Amino acid sequence: MQEDLIERLIEQFRTLPGVGYKTAQRYAFSIIEGKEERAKKFADAILEAKAKIGFCKVCGNFTDKDICNICKTRDRKIICVVAEPKDILSMEKVKSYNGVYHVLFGTISPLEHRGPNDIKIKELLSRVQNDNVEEVIMATNPDVEGDATAMYIAKILKPLGIKVTRLAQGVSMGSDLEYADEITLSKAMEDRKQL
Amino acid sequence: MQEDLIERLIEQFRTLPGVGYKTAQRYAFSIIEGKEERAKKFADAILEAKAKIGFCKVCGNFTDKDICNICKTRDRKIICVVAEPKDILSMEKVKSYNGVYHVLFGTISPLEHRGPNDIKIKELLSRVQNDNVEEVIMATNPDVEGDATAMYIAKILKPLGIKVTRLAQGVSMGSDLEYADEITLSKAMEDRKQL
Repeated sequence: MQEDLIERLIEQFRTLPGVGYKTAQRYAFSIIEGKEERAKKFADAILEAKAKIGFCKVCGNFTDKDICNICKTRDRKIICVVAEPKDILSMEKVKSYNGVYHVLFGTISPLEHRGPNDIKIKELLSRVQNDNVEEVIMATNPDVEGDATAMYIAKILKPLGIKVTRLAQGVSMGSDLEYADEITLSKAMEDRKQL
Repeated sequence: MQEDLIERLIEQFRTLPGVGYKTAQRYAFSIIEGKEERAKKFADAILEAKAKIGFCKVCGNFTDKDICNICKTRDRKIICVVAEPKDILSMEKVKSYNGVYHVLFGTISPLEHRGPNDIKIKELLSRVQNDNVEEVIMATNPDVEGDATAMYIAKILKPLGIKVTRLAQGVSMGSDLEYADEITLSKAMEDRKQL
């Protein structure tokens, strides 16, 4: 008995990650009950973001220009390598980092038949050689594929005299040992630091 | 360092109820990473819903026509009275209900200076008289204002020989007594039924 246009709007909200029917309904009502101006702004933002945002030609970050703000303004001698564009946003929480990024658009995954040539390793190599890069920080996810990809890239870059580092793995700050899984704990033990 | 268009889209998603920055970001990325087609459909659904959905002339339900589907097809002799259009959707979960609705667009609230003339009670009265209504079910929220509004309307309608009922109040089905608050428990005790 729901009216079709409301149902259509609810269906659209349901396509967002992690949104079920009830949440989508709440979102839809907030649009319907809101001002016309707000609905227009919302729709415009969606269309414009989708139409204009592409990938940075240099690093693969999301941008609405040819080259992203980070590539334009920051220190190109340090490259932080991530698997997906959205990982850059997570890494940007590290306010002290002033280097640039490189998006691989995936990780090496034999299970999913993705080899080194299916992700942007060649592009990384040519940046490293052209920009006099001093350090490459591997910030792929701390899982099997992320680790394998980091190892592979380190193997290629080390002979070129590039310092390759990996994000430290261990127990999370502010968390409770009780809740740490055993792999994380083992890793934290293995990489323990002298005080 | 975030690009402006992404930030704008995130801000829009943040205007949805209960959405914080991280959730909005996740939604925004899903739009940016999704197909152009999907972004267009999404924006269209928002614009069209806002432009075409108004209130049913008879009951106040959301509809994209003059008169909503419920008013057109169901038994007008029973009216279920709710405070807001979206409450109709909640009530529609009661599959066995085949009557129509009436939206008050608010409740009587002395604290917020809303009296009987500020909500659609007059309109309810004229429907009751014109449609030979047999029963009015008060489904305003089970709180002070909802109760007061229900009492007020009952007082007006009873002299006209209309049966006025109120949704039963008590402990929720499937819940645990341990978690029921004391007002709900008192109400459940007071309205206990003989088995």
